Amino acid sequence: MASSSYDRAITVFSPDGHLFQVEYAQEAVNRGSTAVGVRGKDIVVLGIEKKSVAKLQDSRTMRKICSLDDHVFMAFAGLNADARILVNRARIECQSHKLTVEDPVTLEYITRYIAGLKQRYTQSNGRRPFGISTLIAGFDYDRTPHLYQTDPSGTYHEWKANVIGRSAKTVREFLEKNYNSEAIESDQSTIRLTVRALLEVVQSGGKNIEVAIMKFGDGLKVIPKISN
Amino acid sequence: MASSSYDRAITVFSPDGHLFQVEYAQEAVNRGSTAVGVRGKDIVVLGIEKKSVAKLQDSRTMRKICSLDDHVFMAFAGLNADARILVNRARIECQSHKLTVEDPVTLEYITRYIAGLKQRYTQSNGRRPFGISTLIAGFDYDRTPHLYQTDPSGTYHEWKANVIGRSAKTVREFLEKNYNSEAIESDQSTIRLTVRALLEVVQSGGKNIEVAIMKFGDGLKVIPKISN
Amino acid sequence: MASSSYDRAITVFSPDGHLFQVEYAQEAVNRGSTAVGVRGKDIVVLGIEKKSVAKLQDSRTMRKICSLDDHVFMAFAGLNADARILVNRARIECQSHKLTVEDPVTLEYITRYIAGLKQRYTQSNGRRPFGISTLIAGFDYDRTPHLYQTDPSGTYHEWKANVIGRSAKTVREFLEKNYNSEAIESDQSTIRLTVRALLEVVQSGGKNIEVAIMKFGDGLKVIPKISN
Amino acid sequence: MASSSYDRAITVFSPDGHLFQVEYAQEAVNRGSTAVGVRGKDIVVLGIEKKSVAKLQDSRTMRKICSLDDHVFMAFAGLNADARILVNRARIECQSHKLTVEDPVTLEYITRYIAGLKQRYTQSNGRRPFGISTLIAGFDYDRTPHLYQTDPSGTYHEWKANVIGRSAKTVREFLEKNYNSEAIESDQSTIRLTVRALLEVVQSGGKNIEVAIMKFGDGLKVIPKISN
Amino acid sequence: MASSSYDRAITVFSPDGHLFQVEYAQEAVNRGSTAVGVRGKDIVVLGIEKKSVAKLQDSRTMRKICSLDDHVFMAFAGLNADARILVNRARIECQSHKLTVEDPVTLEYITRYIAGLKQRYTQSNGRRPFGISTLIAGFDYDRTPHLYQTDPSGTYHEWKANVIGRSAKTVREFLEKNYNSEAIESDQSTIRLTVRALLEVVQSGGKNIEVAIMKFGDGLKVIPKISN
Amino acid sequence: MASSSYDRAITVFSPDGHLFQVEYAQEAVNRGSTAVGVRGKDIVVLGIEKKSVAKLQDSRTMRKICSLDDHVFMAFAGLNADARILVNRARIECQSHKLTVEDPVTLEYITRYIAGLKQRYTQSNGRRPFGISTLIAGFDYDRTPHLYQTDPSGTYHEWKANVIGRSAKTVREFLEKNYNSEAIESDQSTIRLTVRALLEVVQSGGKNIEVAIMKFGDGLKVIPKISN
Amino acid sequence: MASSSYDRAITVFSPDGHLFQVEYAQEAVNRGSTAVGVRGKDIVVLGIEKKSVAKLQDSRTMRKICSLDDHVFMAFAGLNADARILVNRARIECQSHKLTVEDPVTLEYITRYIAGLKQRYTQSNGRRPFGISTLIAGFDYDRTPHLYQTDPSGTYHEWKANVIGRSAKTVREFLEKNYNSEAIESDQSTIRLTVRALLEVVQSGGKNIEVAIMKFGDGLKVIPKISN
Repeated sequence: MASSSYDRAITVFSPDGHLFQVEYAQEAVNRGSTAVGVRGKDIVVLGIEKKSVAKLQDSRTMRKICSLDDHVFMAFAGLNADARILVNRARIECQSHKLTVEDPVTLEYITRYIAGLKQRYTQSNGRRPFGISTLIAGFDYDRTPHLYQTDPSGTYHEWKANVIGRSAKTVREFLEKNYNSEAIESDQSTIRLTVRALLEVVQSGGKNIEVAIMKFGDGLKVIPKISN
Repeated sequence: MASSSYDRAITVFSPDGHLFQVEYAQEAVNRGSTAVGVRGKDIVVLGIEKKSVAKLQDSRTMRKICSLDDHVFMAFAGLNADARILVNRARIECQSHKLTVEDPVTLEYITRYIAGLKQRYTQSNGRRPFGISTLIAGFDYDRTPHLYQTDPSGTYHEWKANVIGRSAKTVREFLEKNYNSEAIESDQSTIRLTVRALLEVVQSGGKNIEVAIMKFGDGLKVIPKISN
Repeated sequence: MASSSYDRAITVFSPDGHLFQVEYAQEAVNRGSTAVGVRGKDIVVLGIEKKSVAKLQDSRTMRKICSLDDHVFMAFAGLNADARILVNRARIECQSHKLTVEDPVTLEYITRYIAGLKQRYTQSNGRRPFGISTLIAGFDYDRTPHLYQTDPSGTYHEWKANVIGRSAKTVREFLEKNYNSEAIESDQSTIRLTVRALLEVVQSGGKNIEVAIMKFGDGLKVIPKISN
Repeated sequence: MASSSYDRAITVFSPDGHLFQVEYAQEAVNRGSTAVGVRGKDIVVLGIEKKSVAKLQDSRTMRKICSLDDHVFMAFAGLNADARILVNRARIECQSHKLTVEDPVTLEYITRYIAGLKQRYTQSNGRRPFGISTLIAGFDYDRTPHLYQTDPSGTYHEWKANVIGRSAKTVREFLEKNYNSEAIESDQSTIRLTVRALLEVVQSGGKNIEVAIMKFGDGLKVIPKISN
Repeated sequence: MASSSYDRAITVFSPDGHLFQVEYAQEAVNRGSTAVGVRGKDIVVLGIEKKSVAKLQDSRTMRKICSLDDHVFMAFAGLNADARILVNRARIECQSHKLTVEDPVTLEYITRYIAGLKQRYTQSNGRRPFGISTLIAGFDYDRTPHLYQTDPSGTYHEWKANVIGRSAKTVREFLEKNYNSEAIESDQSTIRLTVRALLEVVQSGGKNIEVAIMKFGDGLKVIPKISN
Repeated sequence: MASSSYDRAITVFSPDGHLFQVEYAQEAVNRGSTAVGVRGKDIVVLGIEKKSVAKLQDSRTMRKICSLDDHVFMAFAGLNADARILVNRARIECQSHKLTVEDPVTLEYITRYIAGLKQRYTQSNGRRPFGISTLIAGFDYDRTPHLYQTDPSGTYHEWKANVIGRSAKTVREFLEKNYNSEAIESDQSTIRLTVRALLEVVQSGGKNIEVAIMKFGDGLKVIPKISN
Repeated sequence: MASSSYDRAITVFSPDGHLFQVEYAQEAVNRGSTAVGVRGKDIVVLGIEKKSVAKLQDSRTMRKICSLDDHVFMAFAGLNADARILVNRARIECQSHKLTVEDPVTLEYITRYIAGLKQRYTQSNGRRPFGISTLIAGFDYDRTPHLYQTDPSGTYHEWKANVIGRSAKTVREFLEKNYNSEAIESDQSTIRLTVRALLEVVQSGGKNIEVAIMKFGDGLKVIPKISN
């Protein structure tokens, strides 16, 4: 009730310092399908819950995991249409950076770019924030794997492993309990950790899970279905 | 009631993460006439319910199926006037793409263009979303048929077969039950599937159905009336 | 009551997908004077009810029928002032098209131009829709007569015969009953059909009716008063 | 009451198709001082009620009749300040037309210009309509006298005789009863008709009436006071 | 009460044709200090009430009478800050007119300029009207003295004598009773009339009155204090 | 209560001619720390109350007295952040004036510049007024000292002595009682008057007072602490 | 309650001269993690409370201390996303200043730049203020250490020692009691003072504290964990 005055029309502060439009956009994220990211030793893995697709849907365009450049890929939770805009602009930034600087973007650079874009939409007149969170993964040219996460406010952090979307809390607790140096020893165990984390909340099992992996210099590989 | 604060003036998030203006635009789509798309083996088919036309109306301009380029055509459900704007801009994009890149657009390219246009209208100050959904069909130069669908939010997916507009749920259930490799074996059977799907909800029978088909390199052919 | 939140300030969707401002603009049209269009074999005819003019008014400027180009003319119902703006812009478009393309506009081209202009006013920030419907009539260079109609939403269709403005329903029923190949056999019978349709709702008889006719290559002819 | 939602902030349609801001602007006109125009055979006459001027006011700047060009003059009713803006812009248009086209404006041209300007203010974001009606009189180069009238909506018509401002209804009834070919036979009788029409509502008699007359090629002549 | 809906945010018409923001700006004028103008035979005089100045205020910058050009000066009532903006812009216009046209502005020209500026602020989106009235006095090059008055709506008139600001009604009645050819026979009697008019409402007598006079070719002379 | 409709969103007139946003900005000034200005014979003095600084604050950046040019300095009361913007822009104007005109600004010129900037913020769409008053002091090149004061509305006056900020009324009464030719006879007595005026309201005595003085050609001198 | 009218949509004054949006932004700062700054003799130290990081978060990107240039670094409290925008723009300003002026920025210059940016967001139409306070520390080329603080209103001050964020009051009291010449005698004692101040409110002890130090010509050094 008390909030009703502060959450309309544009993104303004409430008396206790909240930005309601940003928090509501986070709700749109929380209602999105789950995405998990795990940073292994020589590998980064992103896994998503495939929404129980309509039977006749062609799964190729449903991708909630997409590559931004040869060495960067991304998963998101929230409004699909918003995500595509961000993906497009991020891809263009990757290309234009390569052309200008003659080096691919670093993982932090492209993350900061996406986060900055999101922040601007929380502070401009009459535009709503983006309704998505992202997991951004890949390798810098020093061969170190990275995993970043951004939210609708435009904040970003680096993680060893993290989760966005529906039931994020449950999955994060699982990751905190099970992520350790042993769990990410081999590529296989890292992938397994990702899948097990998702299975905490994906009810229909591995067939509704898609996993994408990247090794340095190897490009993105997608494993569309997991056999339990 | 609770929603009344969030659905006015511009498109903002409600406390539970909804964009009401987008959902209301979807209502305008749901009240539009039904359109069905089916992707066959060497053919794509779009079929629409012809609204019980005023007796003296010239059916040529009523077209809810129109071609965007030699290899792309489209059906829509929702506000006619909005659709024409999208069609115009999509056609110009097709031409300009051909001039610049010296290749026709791919089906996904033009779908992404239309979806992006729609998304922008859900995030700009003081403009309403587009009140239409579209089925976009055609062939890429590798001869593969495609069928895409976009909605007012700017989301798009590829489908084997799908439906937009009034009674979409009923028709989709029919398609899910009847779409299989046999049903799309020949061009004729693919067309028949489209017509049968429409007849689930079009009461006055085949004379109120229009079907448009495309084969690779063959251009668009329209069958204006179906004999039962 | 429920509608009161959605119909103010700018044109937004109501929860059931209506654009109230557009529907209210249609009301302004429904309160305008009646205009009838009939497409004959070699002739197109537009007829209007002349409002019971103030006794001293000079009828020449009252024209609700006006020509857009040598081969296109138009009647409208609704707000006079809005109509003049549209007429002006349409005339300029006709001239500029001729200069650029070295061909006169087709009937559909100029109709699409007018309809597109109207649609934009239903989707831009802080402008009201145009409060007029139009009947656009004339010949393409292939000598085929055309009759188009546009409404405040920006939708347009081609018709054999149609009516806009006050008591449109009554007149349309008359036209549907009486329009047939015999009724448009000769130019005279086509004009007579137009007049009879108007007399369904114009009470004071032929002296309050104005009819304009066009034959291919012949230009616009106006019959300012009909003797009963 | 019901209207209260539709008449604020910008000019939008009410549910029954009214533009309240335009109608309220008409109220400002109805409260303005009366102006009468009569088109004679070889003469056009505009007469106005001079507001009971403050004793010390210099009547020269009070002019509610002013010339736009050598062959066009105008009277107005409503907000003085708005009128001056329109007069200024109309004068500039007259000059610029002469320079560009090397012909003076026709009466209809300059009327359409003024009406178009008014219409735009009924459809643009956040500007109020002009609060004036105008009578525009003069001669085209074919020596025909013209008398046009525009209102706040931007509508215009040609008249044999008309009236704007306070008590317009009473005066118009007088004109309709008394305007005939005899009444405008001579210049003198035309002027007399104008004065008599004004005396229907101007209480203090001829000394509060100003009449301006124009004959072809003769320029504007003002008769500042009428002896009863 | 009824008015409360129409007087906010921007300047719009009320149902009975009023522009409330303009009328409220007039209130700001009515609360300003009194200024009187009298046009004599060879002289124009402006007199103002000096507000009971704070004891330590330097009266030079308090001037409510200021010159716009060698032959034009002005007094105002209302918001000081608004007045300065108008004075500045009017001075620039005077200079720029002299440079362009190589003639000084006429009194009516600069009055029309100021009035036009005011009118625009009553019709533009989201700006309030100017809260001042002005008396503009001086000589045209034909040696005729002029006295103009403008109000917040942008209306202007020429006067023999007039008053703006607090108690304008009382002073105007005095002027109407006492202004006659005898009263303005000599320069001295014209000045005396101005002072006596002000003394009707200025309680503390001549020491709170400032009078400025202009004769043709002589420039502005200020008499800062009147001995009773 | 009655005011509540007029004081929001933008600066508009209330029915009795008030600009509430400007008056509320004045409240922000009234809550600011006190500043006193005294114009002596060959000296101008500005004195301020130093807010009981946090113990660890570095007093250098706290300056509420700052120089705008070699011959102009300024004290302010109200919002610090707003003041810095004005100071910056005034300094740039001083420099740019010197470059363009090859003469330093006069005191009145820079005061008018600051006041005009403030006025514009009271009349533009959607910006709040500046929340500060200023005392501007210094010498023109004719060696005359000046002391100006501006308020949030954009009004400015010249003063012999004045005060802005908290308890201005008390201090002004003190100044009016004690300012006389004797009190400003010597530089020392002028400074003493300034300090005594401040001590009327600064409770903790001279250690919380800062005084800045300027003599012609001598530049600004600051006396950071006054020994009682 | 009374405030509810003044704190929405844009930043306007309340009747008692408050800018609520700015004060609410300050609340966002007060809910942020604590940051302490201490200026020693040859050293400046910034210390922050590391939020109890999610177990799997990579602490490197969490930095609430970041360098702006070789000789300037900064800590902040409040909205992370807003801070990044400010940091980015400040870094660019540092670089561009170096390129243009061929000297690094002074500490005050870059502080004024950041504060000015913040102020503009409190006075522009339809944008919210920045929700962060900053501590800016470093050395000017004259080897003097500086410590500045800015808040959401755009105000800035220099400090010997200060604190922003949660429980600022408690920590400031500690600093006021313990800051003295002895406490900052050596670099070690200065660092110790910073840590002890933070430990007043950081419950889990030194492991949740990060300290960054700078000596002239030495660059930034970070001590990520403090052993108690």
